[in-house]
Amino acid sequence: MIKLFHFPICPFSRRVRITLSELNIQFTMVNENIWDKRREFLAVNPAGSLPVMIDDQHNAIVSSYAIIEFIQEKFEINYHQNKLDFGDIYEQAEIRRLVDWFDNKFYTEVTRVILKELVDKYYIKNNTNTTSPNMELIRIAQDNLHYHLDYLTHLINSRKWIGGDFFSQADIAASAHLSCLDFLSKLQWDVCPVVKNWYSRIKSRPSFSGILSDSVAGFYPPSHYPNPDF
Amino acid sequence: MIKLFHFPICPFSRRVRITLSELNIQFTMVNENIWDKRREFLAVNPAGSLPVMIDDQHNAIVSSYAIIEFIQEKFEINYHQNKLDFGDIYEQAEIRRLVDWFDNKFYTEVTRVILKELVDKYYIKNNTNTTSPNMELIRIAQDNLHYHLDYLTHLINSRKWIGGDFFSQADIAASAHLSCLDFLSKLQWDVCPVVKNWYSRIKSRPSFSGILSDSVAGFYPPSHYPNPDF
Repeated sequence: MIKLFHFPICPFSRRVRITLSELNIQFTMVNENIWDKRREFLAVNPAGSLPVMIDDQHNAIVSSYAIIEFIQEKFEINYHQNKLDFGDIYEQAEIRRLVDWFDNKFYTEVTRVILKELVDKYYIKNNTNTTSPNMELIRIAQDNLHYHLDYLTHLINSRKWIGGDFFSQADIAASAHLSCLDFLSKLQWDVCPVVKNWYSRIKSRPSFSGILSDSVAGFYPPSHYPNPDF
Repeated sequence: MIKLFHFPICPFSRRVRITLSELNIQFTMVNENIWDKRREFLAVNPAGSLPVMIDDQHNAIVSSYAIIEFIQEKFEINYHQNKLDFGDIYEQAEIRRLVDWFDNKFYTEVTRVILKELVDKYYIKNNTNTTSPNMELIRIAQDNLHYHLDYLTHLINSRKWIGGDFFSQADIAASAHLSCLDFLSKLQWDVCPVVKNWYSRIKSRPSFSGILSDSVAGFYPPSHYPNPDF
């Protein structure tokens, strides 16, 4: 069976978890605390990064980019039930543009900052002298978030889903990032009703139930976090 | 004909240029100075990022990730002449792992810092108060570079090329980043002879000739930059 090394509030791990669940592929998970630098994990991936997937042939696939493309090729999957109607090579390009935007632009300006200040510093508090979250950096990231939520609103208003008229990796990447921020109480849903409505649809999908029941020692998600009707 | 919006010392633009040239696909280039925020370019890509490829159907493909996957799918290309001998789904995963490593880890810790301090600040000097390169950040990036060159040496010593026994996107991504650093005189080739030997092989490829003849106003590459025997 497939095994996934992951961390619950890692957006890249979440993307793989949701994707595997969408495809009804069974897998087990190892909750990997990368700050521990566990020897058995570094033997699998010396870079120490997440996610890492061990497939049913016992091969390690490293990075969400490699894993997602591997899954799509291996299982010859598309999420689009009416694929032939849409000229898919261009749809795929649009989806990958948005995945790239979330995993680079959005991650650099929002998710990475907040995860670093709140989560990384929590886990490395015994090793460094400067462990307090930098509230100014978090404030800037939250300003960037508001700006980017406007872009998401624009996308959702002009399409059925974020990458087009069907649920795709663009939605999975977006919800992977936003759900991590929501877990850390960094989303004000009342100011972005269109995104909230889209996220409510995502939360209702069976593939998302694992994400909604995540728990991380030392962190307490808001009460609305697991609720699809929030 | 395909048109590519690029910037000469953008590693992501370079990866697309090398890939198109490797495949003998003809294309024209528009040298896009993103700091100018040119209206015609923002109409094509409102995010203002590079590279952007306009294909022969006049569709804009945005981000090197989307462009490379699009090219590979559209032209049904593999660089590996003996594809059937190698179990390619795992080779592709290994190549993508390394591309991800260069475009994220290496970029974040080395290329982005040096490009931001030397190139971005040169172009935005009229708009900000703090335009001097931060030499301490450049020094840290160069320390990271030495560490990462050791990893590259390890890879090249254990394989024919960076991603395995054939020339691949891993070599193209690696050479795209290193050639930008070399253009800015930030590589000490005498301390990494194995990487230098690999890069010499890269420089000899016809697909790389455009990269070696690049020029950028205000920047002067070292004399060895265009020479395959350096």
